[in-house]
Amino acid sequence: MAVLSEALTQILIPTSALIGIGFALLQWLLVSKVKVSVDYGKKDGYKDKLIEDEEEGAENADAVIKCAEIQNAISVGATSFLFTQYKYLGIFMVAFAVVIFLFLGSVKGFSTQSEPCTYNPGNLCKPALANAMFSTIAFLLGALTSVLSGFLGMKIATYANARTTLEARKGVGKAFITAFRSGAVMGFLLAANGLLVLYVTINLFKLYYGDDWEGLYESITGYGLGGSSMALFGRVGGGIYTKAADVGADLVGKVEKNIPEDDPRNPAVIADNVGDNVGDIAGMGSDLFGSYAESSCAALFVASISSFGITHDYSAMSYPLTISAMGIVICLITTLFATDLAEIRHVSEIEPSLKRQLLISTILMTAGIAVVSFFALPSEFTLFNFGTEKAVKNWHLFFCVSIGLWAGLAIGYTTEYYTSNAYSPVQDVADSCRTGAATNVIFGLALGYKSVIIPIFAIAIAIYISFSLAAMYGVAVAALGMLSTIATGLAIDAYGPISDNAGGIAEMAGMSHKIRERTDALDAAGNTTAAIGKGFAIGSAALVSLALFGAFVSRAGIKTVDVLTPKVFIGLIVGAMLPYWFSAMTMKSVGSAALKMVEEVRRQFNTIPGLMEGRAKPDYANCVKISTDASLREMIPPGALVMLTPLIAGTLFGVETLAGVLAGSLVSGVQVAISASNTGGAWDNAKKYIEAGASEHAKSLGPKGSDPHKAAVIGDTIGDPLKDTSGPSLNILIKLMAVESLVFAPFFAAHGGLLFKLL
Amino acid sequence: MAVLSEALTQILIPTSALIGIGFALLQWLLVSKVKVSVDYGKKDGYKDKLIEDEEEGAENADAVIKCAEIQNAISVGATSFLFTQYKYLGIFMVAFAVVIFLFLGSVKGFSTQSEPCTYNPGNLCKPALANAMFSTIAFLLGALTSVLSGFLGMKIATYANARTTLEARKGVGKAFITAFRSGAVMGFLLAANGLLVLYVTINLFKLYYGDDWEGLYESITGYGLGGSSMALFGRVGGGIYTKAADVGADLVGKVEKNIPEDDPRNPAVIADNVGDNVGDIAGMGSDLFGSYAESSCAALFVASISSFGITHDYSAMSYPLTISAMGIVICLITTLFATDLAEIRHVSEIEPSLKRQLLISTILMTAGIAVVSFFALPSEFTLFNFGTEKAVKNWHLFFCVSIGLWAGLAIGYTTEYYTSNAYSPVQDVADSCRTGAATNVIFGLALGYKSVIIPIFAIAIAIYISFSLAAMYGVAVAALGMLSTIATGLAIDAYGPISDNAGGIAEMAGMSHKIRERTDALDAAGNTTAAIGKGFAIGSAALVSLALFGAFVSRAGIKTVDVLTPKVFIGLIVGAMLPYWFSAMTMKSVGSAALKMVEEVRRQFNTIPGLMEGRAKPDYANCVKISTDASLREMIPPGALVMLTPLIAGTLFGVETLAGVLAGSLVSGVQVAISASNTGGAWDNAKKYIEAGASEHAKSLGPKGSDPHKAAVIGDTIGDPLKDTSGPSLNILIKLMAVESLVFAPFFAAHGGLLFKLL
Repeated sequence: MAVLSEALTQILIPTSALIGIGFALLQWLLVSKVKVSVDYGKKDGYKDKLIEDEEEGAENADAVIKCAEIQNAISVGATSFLFTQYKYLGIFMVAFAVVIFLFLGSVKGFSTQSEPCTYNPGNLCKPALANAMFSTIAFLLGALTSVLSGFLGMKIATYANARTTLEARKGVGKAFITAFRSGAVMGFLLAANGLLVLYVTINLFKLYYGDDWEGLYESITGYGLGGSSMALFGRVGGGIYTKAADVGADLVGKVEKNIPEDDPRNPAVIADNVGDNVGDIAGMGSDLFGSYAESSCAALFVASISSFGITHDYSAMSYPLTISAMGIVICLITTLFATDLAEIRHVSEIEPSLKRQLLISTILMTAGIAVVSFFALPSEFTLFNFGTEKAVKNWHLFFCVSIGLWAGLAIGYTTEYYTSNAYSPVQDVADSCRTGAATNVIFGLALGYKSVIIPIFAIAIAIYISFSLAAMYGVAVAALGMLSTIATGLAIDAYGPISDNAGGIAEMAGMSHKIRERTDALDAAGNTTAAIGKGFAIGSAALVSLALFGAFVSRAGIKTVDVLTPKVFIGLIVGAMLPYWFSAMTMKSVGSAALKMVEEVRRQFNTIPGLMEGRAKPDYANCVKISTDASLREMIPPGALVMLTPLIAGTLFGVETLAGVLAGSLVSGVQVAISASNTGGAWDNAKKYIEAGASEHAKSLGPKGSDPHKAAVIGDTIGDPLKDTSGPSLNILIKLMAVESLVFAPFFAAHGGLLFKLL
Repeated sequence: MAVLSEALTQILIPTSALIGIGFALLQWLLVSKVKVSVDYGKKDGYKDKLIEDEEEGAENADAVIKCAEIQNAISVGATSFLFTQYKYLGIFMVAFAVVIFLFLGSVKGFSTQSEPCTYNPGNLCKPALANAMFSTIAFLLGALTSVLSGFLGMKIATYANARTTLEARKGVGKAFITAFRSGAVMGFLLAANGLLVLYVTINLFKLYYGDDWEGLYESITGYGLGGSSMALFGRVGGGIYTKAADVGADLVGKVEKNIPEDDPRNPAVIADNVGDNVGDIAGMGSDLFGSYAESSCAALFVASISSFGITHDYSAMSYPLTISAMGIVICLITTLFATDLAEIRHVSEIEPSLKRQLLISTILMTAGIAVVSFFALPSEFTLFNFGTEKAVKNWHLFFCVSIGLWAGLAIGYTTEYYTSNAYSPVQDVADSCRTGAATNVIFGLALGYKSVIIPIFAIAIAIYISFSLAAMYGVAVAALGMLSTIATGLAIDAYGPISDNAGGIAEMAGMSHKIRERTDALDAAGNTTAAIGKGFAIGSAALVSLALFGAFVSRAGIKTVDVLTPKVFIGLIVGAMLPYWFSAMTMKSVGSAALKMVEEVRRQFNTIPGLMEGRAKPDYANCVKISTDASLREMIPPGALVMLTPLIAGTLFGVETLAGVLAGSLVSGVQVAISASNTGGAWDNAKKYIEAGASEHAKSLGPKGSDPHKAAVIGDTIGDPLKDTSGPSLNILIKLMAVESLVFAPFFAAHGGLLFKLL
């Protein structure tokens, strides 16, 4: 048995979650000290601080009022979109809950009889109908938590954006801290909330299940399914929303009218800024919560059929949760390095500071994992490995979790290298703009393709080591390792869109060039961190999916997935095709929605007198409506593709073909996702590189409006749907199909493969 | 035993090959009747024919002289490039031949002792050293045949291009027939030559091997390896050559200087036209020859360990060759439908006529397959299926071959739908040019992604049926079925670059707008048929690779390739990454070479006085040199990646990981290849659609030089490396790694997996 007692485990997990929530609230409090209302009583004090920065003194009150207005418009737009989206998602949730209940209930013909357990046949387990009901409940809880995660993230981001703009008047360091703290609020709230809800759910379900841990953790997998299915619609819907607005705004504003990005005269500008919050923030929040929930569920499910499960060692069983709890504490310490132990004085320090966050959290967490592995696990135990048993030691699991963690760091650093304009890959892409948009696109695509090499080797090594040491459980905890520093990962990821919005607000509020330069520098680093965040999301999705896939295969009762059987092979090749089908849908959706947006923006410029001269206000609401309608309509077909594929493949072709589909979509989707998001990130930063003109080389390509810059803008626009719609949605495709297959595995095993049975 | 006697089989196969060669020569003779020299004695007769087309009368002699000059320049350029390339390839061939001999010789320590056979252990088989030697000879023969195929294709194409231009003066029908006949020369020469060399080689090897068919057909697989490795360098080198020139010429000529495509003032124009011949013609010829050789070798190898092999049923054993022999006869009949039984009177008839070729050959071939299957096979026999035996009937094999054939047609038609500007997908892409290059690229990428869906389902269905009916032998003959109409496929494929060149010559010779319109129409259809040809090449590559993969697994002595073992899974995910790595290299190579070309073209325009006004001649040779140097230098890294991966994976990680790598690169590479080549084809034809202005819609986007047209040109330029370098090279990557693994399988099985053995 583990050194750590059950009672202590029961205390440590929720305590750590509550500490995380408390820390998030503290950060919120600190951010809220920046006032966006003009309080004349305190105004002098404000001026006092600004004394060294005279330039901004005069326009102070005006700027604050403008910022408050814009912030309000963005927040109202984002909230109203999310509520509309949630209405649709509510209908889907209820409908899919019914499907889960009916499919799983029918496994044993809705019988209420207890059954002998599958992996521990001597004991009696709860009836399949109970599992159906609890899986459904877990699904709903996961879905609600996911929605809540996205919503909270959006609220925080729209609260923080104008505050970052205002702080930028005091210098880049202050602005950075505000944006970063706000990111941390989101990171800690999500990580802690996800852990807490899962912990509480397990304990509540245990009241019914008692000693039937097989059934208990089988039902819990519904939590992952709920989390991920909401994330899918969040990512796809939000991604279409934000990129329709962004592409549409850029095509008319930057390309045709030659007005700057985020210019208040552009009718699509509010929709664009709303989009950052509903797509990059809410979507990404749901996505990473989904990854976290799924990797926990995969690990717990595999553990429940290991020796921990059989001997009912609660501390060892809760190892995945304890790792996450430790992660929250480690991330808390890490955050202090950025906010309190060091200060940013120059724009060049921003990226290194964010990068350092990754390194610090990884180093500290390695120690944390060692502690947890030593105390929470018995020194030796056995794991289930597709029909055989595997003897494992606790230090094996330390290596499994750590390799996942460090693979994540390798992916993060590689992503940074390929998407930051501090290194040669992006600079080469920028340089290729000399000969026009075509070479820019060719070089950008080549960069994206190249950027998959190291992450894939990192993932492969992590899989090989963790798989060899501890079978599928090893892979599941490696995924958890990669996600153990999720609070930090989310913080630096959310920092990106917040800075992007801050820049938009500065432009719209007509703040000075100097401030815009600062927010641009924050934003450029934000593009890189957003790409890093996507790298983590994709890397962890690959590991999670493999773990879920392994769990699915175990639960479906198949012993091998042999590529050399026709059933598996056709699954493999069709599965590898799915990311392309899915990307075709999402890319086309963004393209069509952007065309509509372009027409509307052009119409407004043509019909509203004085708009171009800044004398009249554009009709922002119409653009918001176009993005909203497009995203709600267009998120359905790709969503249906992902949700229906496992059901159709499993029901008609059976578990072997479905296993092939999962493996194929996993190995192919990872590549498409990484290359799409890095290509997009690189184009965005190549453009920013030319705009910033920070080196001789960059100056020779600029300034804004030069031919190379125009070519760079085209690349940036093409990259938008790749990096913010297709790319990041793909990792949900991979995970979601795997977790859905796992949840429905008992049904497919019992009734699947109809078509082959008929033939 | 089969109905068809051994003696008759021995007569039928070479006879059919000789008929094919004779037919090719006849077509050549017909093409040669078009004179490109001005023979004053016959000039009146010429004028006589042109009497109805007065417009061209005056410039007749002049135009002919100019065409002859240009043709000569292209032919000299192409020949000199190919000879330079062959020098490098010669070195590679010798070096790799040594590698093959040493690796395979070392399997049994270079012993000259006979060994018990692997699959028929009662008998005694030839020593491993003999297999090493004969594999090496087969490799060299395959390599030489491949080189010869490419070279002959290039010679024919450069012979036909100016003739097509001159015939265009008499109307589109005459020009079409000239281009198509020339394509047929290439198609029939390649198909017949490939069959003949393989047939002769087998019979010569048999003199040594006698009854040891296992060893005989094991050695023959070297023929496939030789063919494919030359094809790789041909495709990659030729692809970089042609696209560096094309992209470079377009970027300065069309975009900066606003001069038409193929304008003689453009210094890169000769290099561009040479490129069509060395890339699209020679490269593609080697490629399809490689596919054909590999699918034959895979089928023969699998058959040699079936009951045919054991009972030494020569007619049944030669089934793959008899199918190809029948294919030549069927294609001969099919060709007559295009050249003699119908006449093209209007540009709108070109595409339907080419499409009809596919349909006719498929229908006739289905009957041909039935005949061969009935006569050449015993009514029942057994096949080796990964350690078990499978009973198969002759009509099962009829279905296997036919399903491959019809899957090819489905792929061809789908490709046509997505790349021809007669249908809505390309028209939508053209329409998206209204809002600029960015939406054009987004829509084009989405189109490419979408275009993989049907081909993948077609391949999956073909694999499932053929695999279920006749295990890996079924898959091998399905691939052969898809390639059985290779002569027709090559004819319509080669027709494309010939027409492209014809248009170039018309422009350079300063021929009238009317003629240029006709050659443009031929060329637009050629873009589509080129895409169809690539579709076939990719589809057949998928089937061939799977068959080779199966043969490799059989020969390496592994029974299952289980995704759920870490060794296999890491192979799978890394294999799926290879197409991206490879594409990154080739895209970047084209980009860099194009940048150099742009600099040179700009330099010439700036420094040669009177060039822009047409008073001075550009220095074509310098541009040819840039393309040559770039392609020879840049073809090495991607070539090394493909050639070394199986050797490294097999030697260090062993056969299971290598099996994973093969499966991964197969399922991922097919998608990348299809989407890349269709995206490129669609962009090219979207541009042509706007230029031709054949409908109200098209007119609203044009004319040449309008903003939408400029956006379309950018898309076309981006598509160039996708459709002519990366995309088509990828199918060689897939096949080549598989056939290389097969050839080296005995070595890997004996000495592979060093790294895992050490750990």
